[in-house]
Amino acid sequence: MTTPATLLELHAALAAATGPDEAARAGAQERNGQLTKPPGALGRLEDLAIWYAAWRGDARPAITAPQVLIFAGNHGVAARGVSAFPPEVTVQMVANFAHGGAAINQLSTLAGATMSVHPIDLETPTADFTQGPAMSEAEVMAAIAVGWEALDPASDLLVVGEMGIGNTTSAAAIAHALFGGAAEDWTGRGTGVDDAGLSLKSKVVAEGLAANPEAAQDPLQALRCLGGRELAAMAGAIAHARVRHIPVILDGFICTAAAAALERAVPGALDHAVAGHGSAEQAHGRMLAQLGKTPLLQLDLRLGEGSGGALAIQILRGALACHSGMATFAEAGVAGG
Amino acid sequence: MTTPATLLELHAALAAATGPDEAARAGAQERNGQLTKPPGALGRLEDLAIWYAAWRGDARPAITAPQVLIFAGNHGVAARGVSAFPPEVTVQMVANFAHGGAAINQLSTLAGATMSVHPIDLETPTADFTQGPAMSEAEVMAAIAVGWEALDPASDLLVVGEMGIGNTTSAAAIAHALFGGAAEDWTGRGTGVDDAGLSLKSKVVAEGLAANPEAAQDPLQALRCLGGRELAAMAGAIAHARVRHIPVILDGFICTAAAAALERAVPGALDHAVAGHGSAEQAHGRMLAQLGKTPLLQLDLRLGEGSGGALAIQILRGALACHSGMATFAEAGVAGG
Repeated sequence: MTTPATLLELHAALAAATGPDEAARAGAQERNGQLTKPPGALGRLEDLAIWYAAWRGDARPAITAPQVLIFAGNHGVAARGVSAFPPEVTVQMVANFAHGGAAINQLSTLAGATMSVHPIDLETPTADFTQGPAMSEAEVMAAIAVGWEALDPASDLLVVGEMGIGNTTSAAAIAHALFGGAAEDWTGRGTGVDDAGLSLKSKVVAEGLAANPEAAQDPLQALRCLGGRELAAMAGAIAHARVRHIPVILDGFICTAAAAALERAVPGALDHAVAGHGSAEQAHGRMLAQLGKTPLLQLDLRLGEGSGGALAIQILRGALACHSGMATFAEAGVAGG
Repeated sequence: MTTPATLLELHAALAAATGPDEAARAGAQERNGQLTKPPGALGRLEDLAIWYAAWRGDARPAITAPQVLIFAGNHGVAARGVSAFPPEVTVQMVANFAHGGAAINQLSTLAGATMSVHPIDLETPTADFTQGPAMSEAEVMAAIAVGWEALDPASDLLVVGEMGIGNTTSAAAIAHALFGGAAEDWTGRGTGVDDAGLSLKSKVVAEGLAANPEAAQDPLQALRCLGGRELAAMAGAIAHARVRHIPVILDGFICTAAAAALERAVPGALDHAVAGHGSAEQAHGRMLAQLGKTPLLQLDLRLGEGSGGALAIQILRGALACHSGMATFAEAGVAGG
C-alpha cells in the first residue's frame, strides 16, 4: 500500500479498505459464551475483545506490539492569542517527549508500547486559517505522509497523540466544519484560557469557517484548510491503520477531530477505532456522540499527547487477558455454562 | 495490631485508626503543580496520585506490592432460589481460581498483583437470614479474622473480591439495613435472574430485615445478621488495611456493601478506599453515592471476584506513573510552569 499522494487518493484508499473478519468475530463470540462467568458479566470488556478479535482476524488474540505515535506542529492561528501558553512550548515539549519526561512517556511505558515523537516543520507554522487555507494540498499531503509512514505495519494497536500550541482552536474549527452548529458549540478552554480567551477562540473559529468555504463542503478539505500538520499526520496514521486492520484507540478532542474528518469523508473509516476517553474539553463529548462512540474512560483528562488513549490500552489489555486467558465452563468443570 | 476478637474491638480499631499523612499530601500537591502539563490537565489522575501519596506517607510513591484477596462463602439464603446458578458453583469457581482460569486471575496477573483465594467453611453455609441472624458473633469474627489475617502488611495496595452463590441478595439486605429505603431499591439481577427471581429476591431481602431488627440499628450487626462469611472477610481485610494505611480499591456491589458497613459504623473508615468501578448491578451506583465515591471505571461489569477493582489498579498505576515519573517544568526547560 503506497502512501496517498493526493486527498483524492486518500479518499480512495479509505473507500477501498476492507472490513473486519466476520469468521473471527463469530469465533470470538462463541468463545466468549463459554467462559467461566455469567453471560455478559464482563460488560464492555466482552464487546471490546470481540471487536479487537474481528479486526485482527484472530478469535483468541493478544496485544504484542502496541505503538504510540506523537506528532507536533505549529499553528499560524496561535499568533491570534488563542492559547494560554506561548508557541515556543511546542518545541520545548518535543524535547521533553524525546527525553522521556512527559505524561505520554510514562503511560506508553506502562502500556508496554513503543513510542516515537515526530515534529513536523515546527519552524514553519501553518498559515493563519482566518486568512485562508492553513495548508496547501502539497503541505497537507506531506504531513499525512509523515503519519502514514510512521505506522509500523507489524504493530497490532495504534494510539496517536499530538502537541501543538493553538491546536484546540484548529480542532474546534474542523469540528464546526464537519458537524455544523455554532462556533461556540465546539470551542473550549484548551490548556486553560480565561473567559476573554474563550470568546476570542470562538470568534477565530467562526472567522476560519468564513475564510474557507470549501471546508464545510468536503471533510478532507476541512483537514487541509483548518487543520495543522500534527492533525493531518494523525489522520494519515489512522487511515493507514484502517487499511491494514490495525485497531486504534482514539485520544481526546484534537485526535478525534482529525479522525472525524476521515469518518465524515468515508463512513466506516473509523470502524477500527474506539474512543479511549472522554476529555474535559467541553466539545469532545458532542463530537463522540456524532461519531457514535462511547469513551472507555471518563477521568476529566484534557492533556492531549495521546495520554488518554495510552491509558485506555490497559482496559483493552484487560479485556483481552480475560477473553483469551480464561477457562471455559467445560475446561474448569463449572456448572451452568 | 492484633486481630479483633469482637465486633466491639473491630469498631474500636477503626475509631482509633489514624488518618493520612498531611505532609506527604502537601508534598505531592506541590510536585503535581510543577509537572510538565497545564494545571489540572490530568484530571482525576492527579487527585488519585495525591490521595495515594498521602495514605502512603510518600510524596512521590510507586506501587510495588499490590495484593488481591478473594474470599468465598456459601449462603443459607441460596436455598430460597435467589440465584440463577446452583450453590455448588461456589466451590467449582474456587477451584477455577486456584487453577488460574477465572477473570480475576487474568486481571491480577496483568496488574502485577499477588492473588490468593480463601474459601471459608464452604461446607457450612450461613443460616438463612430470613429466619434469624446469618451468623453468630463467633462465626462472623472467625470470618473477619480470615480477611484481617490474609492482608500482607507489606503490601501497598489492596483489592478484595468474592465468590458466593446468593451473595448479591446478602449485599442487598445489608445495603437496605444501612441506608433504608425499600427492599426493591437495593435488589438487582445478580448473575442474571429473571423478573420472577428479582421479585423473589426483594421479598427475601425484606424478610431478612424483618427477621433481624438489630441490623438496622448497628452497621456491624448488619454485617453479622445479613452478611456472609466472604463479606465479613472482605470487611476484615479492608479494616486492617485502614489501620495500616494500605490504600484499597473497592470492587462492585458486594464488596461495597461489606465496606459500607465499616463506614456506617465509623465515618471515615473508608477514607483509604476509592471505588474501582460502577457495577451494572443496579443498586451499586446508589450505594456509592451514599458513600460519596465516584467510580474510576464505568464499564458495565457485574462479575464480582474483585475483577473491576483489579482492572482499576491500572488506572492508579497510570496516575502514579505520571505523578512520580514526569519531569518538572524546571527539569525539562519548558516555559509556563
